[in-house]
Amino acid sequence: MVYLTRKEHFNAAHQLYNPSWSEEKNIEVFGKCANKNFHGHNYNLFVTVKGKPNPDTGFIMNVKTLSNLIQQEVCELLDHKNLNMDVPELKGTFASTENLAIFIWNKLNPLITECSLHCIELWETENIYTKYYGETD
Amino acid sequence: MVYLTRKEHFNAAHQLYNPSWSEEKNIEVFGKCANKNFHGHNYNLFVTVKGKPNPDTGFIMNVKTLSNLIQQEVCELLDHKNLNMDVPELKGTFASTENLAIFIWNKLNPLITECSLHCIELWETENIYTKYYGETD
Amino acid sequence: MVYLTRKEHFNAAHQLYNPSWSEEKNIEVFGKCANKNFHGHNYNLFVTVKGKPNPDTGFIMNVKTLSNLIQQEVCELLDHKNLNMDVPELKGTFASTENLAIFIWNKLNPLITECSLHCIELWETENIYTKYYGETD
Amino acid sequence: MVYLTRKEHFNAAHQLYNPSWSEEKNIEVFGKCANKNFHGHNYNLFVTVKGKPNPDTGFIMNVKTLSNLIQQEVCELLDHKNLNMDVPELKGTFASTENLAIFIWNKLNPLITECSLHCIELWETENIYTKYYGETD
Amino acid sequence: MVYLTRKEHFNAAHQLYNPSWSEEKNIEVFGKCANKNFHGHNYNLFVTVKGKPNPDTGFIMNVKTLSNLIQQEVCELLDHKNLNMDVPELKGTFASTENLAIFIWNKLNPLITECSLHCIELWETENIYTKYYGETD
Amino acid sequence: MVYLTRKEHFNAAHQLYNPSWSEEKNIEVFGKCANKNFHGHNYNLFVTVKGKPNPDTGFIMNVKTLSNLIQQEVCELLDHKNLNMDVPELKGTFASTENLAIFIWNKLNPLITECSLHCIELWETENIYTKYYGETD
Repeated sequence: MVYLTRKEHFNAAHQLYNPSWSEEKNIEVFGKCANKNFHGHNYNLFVTVKGKPNPDTGFIMNVKTLSNLIQQEVCELLDHKNLNMDVPELKGTFASTENLAIFIWNKLNPLITECSLHCIELWETENIYTKYYGETD
Repeated sequence: MVYLTRKEHFNAAHQLYNPSWSEEKNIEVFGKCANKNFHGHNYNLFVTVKGKPNPDTGFIMNVKTLSNLIQQEVCELLDHKNLNMDVPELKGTFASTENLAIFIWNKLNPLITECSLHCIELWETENIYTKYYGETD
Repeated sequence: MVYLTRKEHFNAAHQLYNPSWSEEKNIEVFGKCANKNFHGHNYNLFVTVKGKPNPDTGFIMNVKTLSNLIQQEVCELLDHKNLNMDVPELKGTFASTENLAIFIWNKLNPLITECSLHCIELWETENIYTKYYGETD
Repeated sequence: MVYLTRKEHFNAAHQLYNPSWSEEKNIEVFGKCANKNFHGHNYNLFVTVKGKPNPDTGFIMNVKTLSNLIQQEVCELLDHKNLNMDVPELKGTFASTENLAIFIWNKLNPLITECSLHCIELWETENIYTKYYGETD
Repeated sequence: MVYLTRKEHFNAAHQLYNPSWSEEKNIEVFGKCANKNFHGHNYNLFVTVKGKPNPDTGFIMNVKTLSNLIQQEVCELLDHKNLNMDVPELKGTFASTENLAIFIWNKLNPLITECSLHCIELWETENIYTKYYGETD
Repeated sequence: MVYLTRKEHFNAAHQLYNPSWSEEKNIEVFGKCANKNFHGHNYNLFVTVKGKPNPDTGFIMNVKTLSNLIQQEVCELLDHKNLNMDVPELKGTFASTENLAIFIWNKLNPLITECSLHCIELWETENIYTKYYGETD
């Protein structure tokens, strides 16, 4: 088993705000992230797949195919978007890095068929990232 | 003359949109940056000052003082903010990286008195940055 | 299960020296790291916790809380310190990156209660790091 | 168990080309990587070993020994080389990042005796890397 | 005057070899870089332009236009190529980082008309780069 | 004129302390950097030379020669050392990043004869660096 990782990125606005809480509680819990006019990040996304190298190519998956898939299915949806307003599938969830990693896993997992999706690693800043390995982890 | 640089960062939302233009022209010129619901970035800011080392300290400026100054005067104003909506002094200007670098220069320049402000370097993404050296450049 | 990582840093002096050995053997084994007047590093520390996102926040742990905890319990103790002389709990152990990772795990593990500590990753230079996952690994 | 990682690098030329395929099929599958005159990369290599810290040193393995081993056994063989033409042991295999990671594992694994080889992580560009943990993974 | 920089990259093979010298002298001067079968690098290219922000956009140049220009005029020509064999305009020159920076300046300079080309910065590895500011520097 | 830069690094301990001041004033000015038992850093050093490419090599200076020179004249002297105690030439000066950059310039400048030394850039941490261009700047 070999693991292959491809990095892509997207830039997006978001806020963290629980509408069932008071303004005070939102600021207490989410701090500056609760700003109603949004703030934003450059997200760096590392997608890892695993499998055995194909004897005809030496690849477990063509990394160009993987890159195109991430761009079409994830970056097209999230890049230069407002994660709270522009992405219907994220409505009603918190746009936390944790939830975004799960969301990206669920978008990509059904589409990776020649090998297996192993991990979604999502960097929100240079100092914060999350990893998700799917439900069976 | 020695040059001393300090890195700080802030995360913000913005859009690029010319209200005197049609929607079509905005999309043609600004592309995805014209999204009305905003997108965002992790900005990395490098502030450079120049001067002669003080014989009592070996410093041209105490880097902790410089760091505090940048945080109080710039990051406090821009971090986790919407650059188009939350910063009164930026109203009516385009929140381009070029204009932000000039804005930051103008905020810091009057406050650096023991040596001279030399350069504002502002990274919008890992692939794009601007530099501004003041008007006398 | 989702994994959340926070990066912090500290700068410290240390030496690697076994007092039960001769000077020659220390230099043979530890090389330049045995310098009796110490040398130092900028340590980068990545702390990973794991758990399920809280439905009220989307967080497995508030990353600001995690950051404060690391700063108070680890950086306060180690930053701008001499690891051989200034840290009573490290007396009598080698200040190797391996031992520092275990030490940091033992400081943080009892204090992370709303989710689980998963990994301590400690970079001594850009080219060397250690990871520790606790004793049950 | 503690994990220790050392980074080394090498620069090499290669091509990806399946001689049993037509020129057209090679370009369709490998794209620009099929260029018959070769292209090249700066490879970054992270080698991870695992074990228990030695009570006499605090090390699971002397990182200088590990660095020398990687340089002598791997970098000496691959640095400033053409991976398709200059490395007899790679003849007849595809010089994919996947296969290179396996090759490097097989070179180093028999030589690491005081602790265990855990992982080979090989970056081909800033955006692509593979990991290999040996056959028992 | 504001300076705007855009990063692009390309991967290429090359060798450094002076055909008017003996094999011995080539190895003495160029070392491993003289390998006749080539080696290669991931080149990182930073292109800086300078000018005044346009009052209609806040841009000194649209960074998307600059990116497309670099990709079409430079990366298309050099990416996944053998710099000694595949680039007619480089025939008869040494493919040193110094000469490549001058070559890229000469390709881009006539095409940047709405503002001025200021600098070509070309990284051959993480440890080596050159800068060229044109002849009038 | 082309500029060529080479990165090297060294790890060292230091303190910032003015012996003509009281303990209180030292802590007020230098903060944690005044720790009498020292702290330390991984220093990254970028040395830039300038000149015209040699028509026989395409080099303004052989970067291997430049690297060896920096290692022998600077790193040999500073790496794994205590900058306050182990370096006779630094006795009586503050081991600030500003002064270190000047010190390194003065060590290297007389030895670079085939082209000109242009700049010493010294990173003390990921967030702080100084630059020195010599007295004629």
